[in-house]
Amino acid sequence: MLATYPADLGRVDREKLSKCIEECIACAQACTACADACLSEGMPAELAKCIRTNMDCADICNATASVLSRHTGYDANITRTILQACASACKACADECGRHTHMEHCRLCAESCRSCETACNDLLQALG
Amino acid sequence: MLATYPADLGRVDREKLSKCIEECIACAQACTACADACLSEGMPAELAKCIRTNMDCADICNATASVLSRHTGYDANITRTILQACASACKACADECGRHTHMEHCRLCAESCRSCETACNDLLQALG
Amino acid sequence: MLATYPADLGRVDREKLSKCIEECIACAQACTACADACLSEGMPAELAKCIRTNMDCADICNATASVLSRHTGYDANITRTILQACASACKACADECGRHTHMEHCRLCAESCRSCETACNDLLQALG
Amino acid sequence: MLATYPADLGRVDREKLSKCIEECIACAQACTACADACLSEGMPAELAKCIRTNMDCADICNATASVLSRHTGYDANITRTILQACASACKACADECGRHTHMEHCRLCAESCRSCETACNDLLQALG
Repeated sequence: MLATYPADLGRVDREKLSKCIEECIACAQACTACADACLSEGMPAELAKCIRTNMDCADICNATASVLSRHTGYDANITRTILQACASACKACADECGRHTHMEHCRLCAESCRSCETACNDLLQALG
Repeated sequence: MLATYPADLGRVDREKLSKCIEECIACAQACTACADACLSEGMPAELAKCIRTNMDCADICNATASVLSRHTGYDANITRTILQACASACKACADECGRHTHMEHCRLCAESCRSCETACNDLLQALG
Repeated sequence: MLATYPADLGRVDREKLSKCIEECIACAQACTACADACLSEGMPAELAKCIRTNMDCADICNATASVLSRHTGYDANITRTILQACASACKACADECGRHTHMEHCRLCAESCRSCETACNDLLQALG
Repeated sequence: MLATYPADLGRVDREKLSKCIEECIACAQACTACADACLSEGMPAELAKCIRTNMDCADICNATASVLSRHTGYDANITRTILQACASACKACADECGRHTHMEHCRLCAESCRSCETACNDLLQALG
């Protein structure tokens, strides 16, 4: 869709922007599914923090993907601060899921979070 | 992520479920981007209905993707009615964007909505 | 905000519309908080279905509140089907939380869901 | 709902937390309605930036309200960065709507955004 935007996108790095949108969407999906998979494990009490962090990360990744998908009336402060919040949520969730990598859903979710964190930080750097 | 779910998924058609989640996520993204692209066209007054339908469709597709990504404590009534709402929003948005296919963002968004509508209806039928 | 809408709202029952938006917002908030409170109880395994239904209900109520807050380019099919999905999610969540009314968060959440279900059905009837 | 949380809330200022959740929810609702009202004005081209900022602010306020409504497995970094993103989006939206206060929806939305920005900054300060 990025290529169909009718106005000028400005001097943004399109590749990093597009990569970051994709990572946010994939990470939100992984976190929603991981929260649910954790819930269905027999011992959700130990996974309470993991489930909560998954939910926060999904909400913030979804909001970030939406903000990054808009180019009209760009506001650098909104973009920067939501990217920072997203990187921070992804880091926390990758750390938390990273403690339970014996569960395949947590292992995959940690990977997705780490990858999204990197994409957010890359885009932040490219924005200057 | 679907393959990592630790409990029984029940007799759901995994392929149709997985396809429908993917379509909802792709459609939400297309609608969010199309609403923004419409906004940046010089004549958003004519596109007001299109923008609005895009926003509804994005919100409903996102909610549907989240509901479908959860398998714990499955409730058939919630799944069925949100799939019907999603099919209905996708149909409305495909029809509306379908009137402006000379704009590439609307053409692609209409395709994505039509494809998501089909996936919702296929899953509804498979659920019986 | 409803009173500030600059165009014609059509023949919608403003009181029922406004009531329904408020109920959806309050219910989404109650469900998000109840899911988290359930998570912090010592026995989330028994509350897994409750937590999941809370999350679905919160997502669907939020989407419904957004759709109902838009009046431009109104589409009756989208409004009707998302209201049906919302009533269905609220009913399921009220039933589920209604089994754990010894926990104050579930008791309040069940009330909020029941109240939102009624508001959705009232608005559906008023829409004809 | 805050009062029904079964575990320890920690040393958070409950009044400021509760105020901030309420402001985020009210601001998200005001922004969604203002975006739609702007769309229905006869000259949405001039309001394109306002509509876009409204949508960003609504998405970020909703995510922030959800994060703040969860207390289990609290992560200070997530809370702080999403509050900063929310304050930043509210400021941008208050500034933008503040240019169109002759339209009642923008005047009310600007007030709501300013009030939410203050609540986010107050809570940030209380968190230390």
